[in-house]
Amino acid sequence: MQSPAQNFSALTTDLYEVTMACGYFKAGVTDHDAVFHVTFRRNPFGGQFAVACGLATAIDFLRSFRFTDTEIDYLTLQRGNDGKPLFDSRFLDYLRGLQLTCDVDAIPEGTLVFPDEPLIRVVGPIVQCQLLETALLNIFNFQTLIAAKAARLCLAAEQDPVIEFGLRRSQGVDGGLSAARAAYIGGCAGTSNLQAGQRFGIPVSGTQAHSWIMFFENEREAFQVYAKAMPNNCIFLVDTYDSIEGIRHAIEIGSELRRQGHELIGVRLDSGDGAALSIKARRMLDEAGFMNAKIVGSGNLDEFMITDLKRRGARIDVWGVGTKLSTGQPDGALDGIYKLGAIRPPGGDWQYRIKLSEESAKTSIPGSLQVRRFYQPDGRFLADAIYETAHGILEPCEVVDTQTADKTTIPADTPYSDLLVPIFRSGQLVYETPDIETSRDHLRKQLSCAPPEILQLNDPQPYNVGIERSLYELRSTLMAHAKQQAKRN
Amino acid sequence: MQSPAQNFSALTTDLYEVTMACGYFKAGVTDHDAVFHVTFRRNPFGGQFAVACGLATAIDFLRSFRFTDTEIDYLTLQRGNDGKPLFDSRFLDYLRGLQLTCDVDAIPEGTLVFPDEPLIRVVGPIVQCQLLETALLNIFNFQTLIAAKAARLCLAAEQDPVIEFGLRRSQGVDGGLSAARAAYIGGCAGTSNLQAGQRFGIPVSGTQAHSWIMFFENEREAFQVYAKAMPNNCIFLVDTYDSIEGIRHAIEIGSELRRQGHELIGVRLDSGDGAALSIKARRMLDEAGFMNAKIVGSGNLDEFMITDLKRRGARIDVWGVGTKLSTGQPDGALDGIYKLGAIRPPGGDWQYRIKLSEESAKTSIPGSLQVRRFYQPDGRFLADAIYETAHGILEPCEVVDTQTADKTTIPADTPYSDLLVPIFRSGQLVYETPDIETSRDHLRKQLSCAPPEILQLNDPQPYNVGIERSLYELRSTLMAHAKQQAKRN
Repeated sequence: MQSPAQNFSALTTDLYEVTMACGYFKAGVTDHDAVFHVTFRRNPFGGQFAVACGLATAIDFLRSFRFTDTEIDYLTLQRGNDGKPLFDSRFLDYLRGLQLTCDVDAIPEGTLVFPDEPLIRVVGPIVQCQLLETALLNIFNFQTLIAAKAARLCLAAEQDPVIEFGLRRSQGVDGGLSAARAAYIGGCAGTSNLQAGQRFGIPVSGTQAHSWIMFFENEREAFQVYAKAMPNNCIFLVDTYDSIEGIRHAIEIGSELRRQGHELIGVRLDSGDGAALSIKARRMLDEAGFMNAKIVGSGNLDEFMITDLKRRGARIDVWGVGTKLSTGQPDGALDGIYKLGAIRPPGGDWQYRIKLSEESAKTSIPGSLQVRRFYQPDGRFLADAIYETAHGILEPCEVVDTQTADKTTIPADTPYSDLLVPIFRSGQLVYETPDIETSRDHLRKQLSCAPPEILQLNDPQPYNVGIERSLYELRSTLMAHAKQQAKRN
Repeated sequence: MQSPAQNFSALTTDLYEVTMACGYFKAGVTDHDAVFHVTFRRNPFGGQFAVACGLATAIDFLRSFRFTDTEIDYLTLQRGNDGKPLFDSRFLDYLRGLQLTCDVDAIPEGTLVFPDEPLIRVVGPIVQCQLLETALLNIFNFQTLIAAKAARLCLAAEQDPVIEFGLRRSQGVDGGLSAARAAYIGGCAGTSNLQAGQRFGIPVSGTQAHSWIMFFENEREAFQVYAKAMPNNCIFLVDTYDSIEGIRHAIEIGSELRRQGHELIGVRLDSGDGAALSIKARRMLDEAGFMNAKIVGSGNLDEFMITDLKRRGARIDVWGVGTKLSTGQPDGALDGIYKLGAIRPPGGDWQYRIKLSEESAKTSIPGSLQVRRFYQPDGRFLADAIYETAHGILEPCEVVDTQTADKTTIPADTPYSDLLVPIFRSGQLVYETPDIETSRDHLRKQLSCAPPEILQLNDPQPYNVGIERSLYELRSTLMAHAKQQAKRN
């Protein structure tokens, strides 16, 4: 089980998904197929990339998707504005018997992703597709956000480990679990969250709280008692009263520990000027012979503070990041959406669908979509083309920027891979979910192949991603048509 | 069951809580009592109040708190820096048998609360208190944040209903459940989240997604099919192609509905200029005889946008708020902390504890704390005094502002109530958890008794809350002492 999804149920959805499902049912179109994609419009955190994350959770949700009797009973109670039941028993029986038969394709976790790229594509009966919307968005929006945040933090920390510390501020228990999972895929070295450690096999770590220090008569005694009780886990929190005094006490007790055959792991700085304090702490530790003792920095950190501390010469070895990682601040949410690309009546052809917007860049992309990533000879990413699977790609591939309409031509014979891979076929899982370490490694490789300028925290440059030319033309035609239609009907 | 807490376990905690617990155990101080409080330092969202929320969830967590064999097995695997087990079997057996025996007091849900006021107080054996820290913070930090956000939205919406729509952007499934619950206590009229409706009895509502409209050949057909299928649930989403045309189609189908004995509930505007569109929609609906049809507004709303739309004359009747409510933007987290106030060796007296900070206002408050709220003759809130239960209150009560050290004297015989009430005694629940409607009503009454200037969105004025004089003096003495100690040891 890779999923923080114990709380998922078929009712993990908005009421309107079920009323629409009932509408489709009563309109007699349950045999119509649809294709939907989860995409996002804007890279999070002012950056130029996001990290696909959430697929393992989505798989767990999809595999266990069914309406239980209790859930059906709850739906039976819903009333319309005339006080009569919203759902009739024929529809509720249909829901009771519903089993997923969709085809699902998705981008593996740990892949770098960009605006408008489908993270997941769901193809199947319209009712099923509709009922999955809210839960899929819930999963991908949050985990993709947090994996991106973690990647940004790890980039800022360069080679230093970053530990996720945020359970106490996370949004609900599986807000915390999902955050720990996504943060690990995003590159964090571990979490403080034991439940996440237990459930996902993520390494757990921790130091001490101020309450431990405060419980004892004084700090020296607090460290001493801890060293005696837990000699193989000594990272002393030094800022309860005065950080420099705290480091002095840590060294004293560290020397006692060493005489008993144990080794001080390090100290944690949780307040004050992390640069000045860590430089001083490093010098004090080194002079006392604790060259291998680590300095853990924590306290309201984000990627910009880490960058700034490093620039100022901070000698912090391990970064503990809580709130801003686990709640994905300052964004708090990815703006992911679930849009209909096409429908198909039984025995018929796919009919494209489009949602207009006042800004043409925000108009949806029609069809059943795939992403082709092109590579430079050295394996670096060159450009991504979003294309319609039935149309394929016109050679040579031209990538059109949806914002500017600028075109980039990809030379023929450029190496590429298609990012979405089969996950479910006719409702059956056909994908072997990688373990979390594999997804984490995948991201590490992706980052090493990305153009460095898209990864930088300050003034990052956009990656070359756009719509393949024939799809772009299809979309323009449909936009013009839909605008006319809106006026005519 | 009032709780979104199915995912809670004794491992819903940080590793360091368990290593500290082991430290206390091995140091032989498991018979020492401690008192801890959850407090926050800063009102969320730039406002001057927060709303206590999360207690029912905390009660569910505390009632079911125990370590299972699987959890103990997981802890057995943890290793220290020498590769040897972190926890020995004697400690793990102790955890296995651990049952909560704490006394817990808390402020009922729906109460207006202010910085430094304890939302919950836990008194009991140090190990138990320590192990509860992370989960209690997780619960209170998030739900208190969201209840405050909801209250702000409802104040901005004046008497209009606000519906929570945010599950697709919430942080995990029980991020969504907890948000729906807290938003309802905070004053929302309902949620779109069916699972929240099922679990907490919150009213659910919903309209249509763009995908419904896009599925059909054109918008008119989409409305018509829906009206036939779901005649008692017609709130038409009108902005898929062109909002004004959409309203026209809604009126057309609304007239057909009426001929069949049903009534149009309303329309939903999801994009564009909500003020201009709603004014136009209202006129069109009224002219067509749909005076009772509601206009639902949605799309990236927050309390400031609602205020602005109202100021500009928007005729929106129902406000659908998603992301910014359910993820508590822009704050994303309340800065709640869990601080040790005192310890007591077996048979001994309470010994006060304090955590220093560079800013004296951020220094913790010692002791076992209660909050006394004083009222004006008309029942309005006058001031809150945080006091130490053993010290009581020196008459007449003087309230000292921790930031400014300004004092306010409360006249003798001023009516008051103490906000924290008994929840657990010796681990047994002694509190009858109010149902969610009662907590919601409680907040409504609280808001009606609060000084209006603390509730306003723009330039709100701080409420008069501070530390009772004798506690203030105790804290000052302990601060001076702790500073000396830090230097001496």
